[in-house]
Amino acid sequence: MIKIKPYLKKVHLELPEPTLTDNVSDKERLKRGLAQFGFHNINFPFRLMRELAKNLRMEDWKVTVVLVEMDFGKEVVRLSPGGRDADQCKYGLAVDVGTTTIVVYLVDLPAGRLVDIASTYNYQIIYGEDVISRIIYATDKGGLKELQDTVIDNINNLIEPIKEKFGLTEECIDSIVISGNTTMTQLLLGLDPAWIRLEPYIPTANIFPITSAGRLGINVTPDAPLYTLPCVASYVGGDIVAGVLTTKMHKREELSILMDIGTNGELVIGNSEWLMTTACSAGPCFEGGGLKYGMRATEGAIDGVKINPQTLEAEITVIGGGAPEGVCGSGIIDTIAELFLKGLITHKGQIRTDLGLKNIRSTQEGVEFILFQNKKKLITVTEPDIDNILRAKSAIYAGFMVMLQEVGLSFNDISTYYIAGGFGRFLNIEKAIIIGMLPDQPRKKFKYFGNTSATGAYICLLSAQLRKEAEDIAKKMTYMELSVSRHFMDEYVAGLFLPHTNLSAFPSVAEMMAT
Amino acid sequence: MIKIKPYLKKVHLELPEPTLTDNVSDKERLKRGLAQFGFHNINFPFRLMRELAKNLRMEDWKVTVVLVEMDFGKEVVRLSPGGRDADQCKYGLAVDVGTTTIVVYLVDLPAGRLVDIASTYNYQIIYGEDVISRIIYATDKGGLKELQDTVIDNINNLIEPIKEKFGLTEECIDSIVISGNTTMTQLLLGLDPAWIRLEPYIPTANIFPITSAGRLGINVTPDAPLYTLPCVASYVGGDIVAGVLTTKMHKREELSILMDIGTNGELVIGNSEWLMTTACSAGPCFEGGGLKYGMRATEGAIDGVKINPQTLEAEITVIGGGAPEGVCGSGIIDTIAELFLKGLITHKGQIRTDLGLKNIRSTQEGVEFILFQNKKKLITVTEPDIDNILRAKSAIYAGFMVMLQEVGLSFNDISTYYIAGGFGRFLNIEKAIIIGMLPDQPRKKFKYFGNTSATGAYICLLSAQLRKEAEDIAKKMTYMELSVSRHFMDEYVAGLFLPHTNLSAFPSVAEMMAT
Repeated sequence: MIKIKPYLKKVHLELPEPTLTDNVSDKERLKRGLAQFGFHNINFPFRLMRELAKNLRMEDWKVTVVLVEMDFGKEVVRLSPGGRDADQCKYGLAVDVGTTTIVVYLVDLPAGRLVDIASTYNYQIIYGEDVISRIIYATDKGGLKELQDTVIDNINNLIEPIKEKFGLTEECIDSIVISGNTTMTQLLLGLDPAWIRLEPYIPTANIFPITSAGRLGINVTPDAPLYTLPCVASYVGGDIVAGVLTTKMHKREELSILMDIGTNGELVIGNSEWLMTTACSAGPCFEGGGLKYGMRATEGAIDGVKINPQTLEAEITVIGGGAPEGVCGSGIIDTIAELFLKGLITHKGQIRTDLGLKNIRSTQEGVEFILFQNKKKLITVTEPDIDNILRAKSAIYAGFMVMLQEVGLSFNDISTYYIAGGFGRFLNIEKAIIIGMLPDQPRKKFKYFGNTSATGAYICLLSAQLRKEAEDIAKKMTYMELSVSRHFMDEYVAGLFLPHTNLSAFPSVAEMMAT
Repeated sequence: MIKIKPYLKKVHLELPEPTLTDNVSDKERLKRGLAQFGFHNINFPFRLMRELAKNLRMEDWKVTVVLVEMDFGKEVVRLSPGGRDADQCKYGLAVDVGTTTIVVYLVDLPAGRLVDIASTYNYQIIYGEDVISRIIYATDKGGLKELQDTVIDNINNLIEPIKEKFGLTEECIDSIVISGNTTMTQLLLGLDPAWIRLEPYIPTANIFPITSAGRLGINVTPDAPLYTLPCVASYVGGDIVAGVLTTKMHKREELSILMDIGTNGELVIGNSEWLMTTACSAGPCFEGGGLKYGMRATEGAIDGVKINPQTLEAEITVIGGGAPEGVCGSGIIDTIAELFLKGLITHKGQIRTDLGLKNIRSTQEGVEFILFQNKKKLITVTEPDIDNILRAKSAIYAGFMVMLQEVGLSFNDISTYYIAGGFGRFLNIEKAIIIGMLPDQPRKKFKYFGNTSATGAYICLLSAQLRKEAEDIAKKMTYMELSVSRHFMDEYVAGLFLPHTNLSAFPSVAEMMAT
């Protein structure tokens, strides 16, 4: 259990009324009051000066002071008339800004309780599906402000129904923690991401100063401090730091690997002694992007597929149990694994049209395998879809390989493989190994940890100590740049087969193929 | 000589270009560069993040970083592309915001040189001549914003011609120090002064956080830090702290008194061990306000008056030497002293009409003494004028008395009487003693120190050390509230005579009267 000690600290003061003999200034009186609670050398910013006299006197010298730990020490970020009873603010927001998906957690801060979750596509998708295309839009097309406004709208649209549902005013929410990859973070904060894309790939910052919700236009208390989880490098962001923080792999002696597979695949290897990280581009396909019938892993998505050994037809499971509307990443991986084991596709991912199967058909767009069909709806997996997934899984596996070789280790040295990210929730480990995306290791080594980016933001809302720990993790991680590695390209090409060019690395898959 | 070490610190950096092996973030690179100059733990505020990447790259990693010492440590307040050569900013402004007069000094910061001075009436006068009436206007009539805008316009109107004269752009001026009494300071900063007027007379703050010129609307570099000299209490402001700093009375073993006589009369007594201060309201008459032909001590003002013993007519000197346009405070004091010594007015300040003099006449508004008359112009001193001055001088003398009694000292214990303020420049010490405004002490003890409020602001622009010293002075001063002192009222009433009810306290004046 986390000891709840939010990074936003509230102090309820009852100050003595000034007299002719106790006639220090309002600011001094406030500082004296804070000092009595052990808060010394608190910075009081100019913007709070104007309302200071009024705020102190409105409720007879009872005030609530909100303090936040800044880079340089503690600062007053809000001052409201009235004491504990009058203080309505008690909620915080943890926001995971993914390239494809945005998730918001509403958190009851005093109780430490997760109250509600909302999520949606990142509306920025219309400007490009991956970070690179968005950086280009922000840079070459001057669209930075537009992209920033889009994600802020996004977040506001998620907050509004939650506020309505729980009858909260803006004033009820008074702190925010953001977690995202470096590009998403910079776009949200309005920082030019141009240099993330260009060699030598430099972000504006990895550790960001605290700003306020109001400055960014997020519809909560305008003074609400907005803390951003620190990033490591241009392609390893706060979401990964949040992942390490959540799994606690940085506190264990044994070696672990953390993988957060979304539009980008980020990998971390290490233990309490050291941490190394790298990133490879998977593209949006694991989140349903760029696939003919792809969709996110939400209600209506086919997330599990088996091929009936007799009929060779697909047997599907659908999230929510209703009629299928599309197929999500894990559904596609299942499909490919099944097609491969049943011999319906080749090592290269080509669908066999020579078997005379009704559910394999050729269209103008290429060959496809039918997952579901009724009068109203058709859902298929196409050869280009399979190709997309092959490239994505190969990039990730190559990332593992290069990273391990860099530190002179093998898959067997790793005690735990943490899987993070929304995508991982529906991922069938077995099938992911069959297609050669994950290493062929004992299945019990794999642990799904959920959306660790959101969880990391959530726990940082609750604990100033963990926020500090996140910064330590970010500073401790060594980043390895893959994009300039020749070795990586060789590994990538070797991985563009099912399960892999080097079948001996996949003994259990070889065994399944033989049966 | 002041060692020039401006509170605004400029660092010219030439950063190494990032590479794949030296790929820290832009912010980290900047901080690393600053650390090499010995600046560690520098706060980098969020508002500078957006332009950071661009600013670093625009001139090939040459940048000028402007640092300011805040309450909590050093902060970057501006970052401009280019090094020393590109840096146009080199001027600062010292602004003395008086109740009646506003003075601006343009200072060449690297050279420490005073380049130009401009001054004007404080336009706020239309809302009331003294601080109390302006506080009432700000409070009861909701005029705070109006008063703030007025003084900002005031300052801008003084800066514009200076900028034009020296061909300066806004960017050339990049720091401001403000010195003023507590009310003027709060009005300038937009802080509600209501509580300054009401018992127990509490200002919002005595030490103000640094803000920026842009936030207040002053037309210099928007990021230019604006430092406000610290105040002591509601009626002893930064102007007095500036006065102590300028005279260095806080560094001497012997006792001194500093008096800054303007619309308010502030007094400080003390030495390197201790400082005590008080304030009494003089009203605007010493600055020419509320007098029938009163004006500020500028060109055209009668500043010296003698009465010819034969003709009993006034012999005047005029500032600038041209035709007189009015009479300033020192001119009035001279007149009263002369009228008194020549027996043309009574101890109570009544003008004698029984002498049949041509230059004493009765009008509907009362009796008056003619200072100057030609076909176009008439300038007189009226009985209400004299009454005004009597009340003002009596308040100041009572302030001296009560303060000395409080610390168990007498006028003889004081080695130096420092006279500060624009008004003091033209003040004839002899005449001020004759009317009982200043104590009857050896004349050589009195030293005029000029506009120490402006000088204090000027030296604080040049030296971070002196800024620190100003804060130490403010903290060290004990404030004595006169307005609630019964003793003060008694002394005040005793002083409403020429030179004083207690003539024995003015032996040299008694001697003059006898001759």
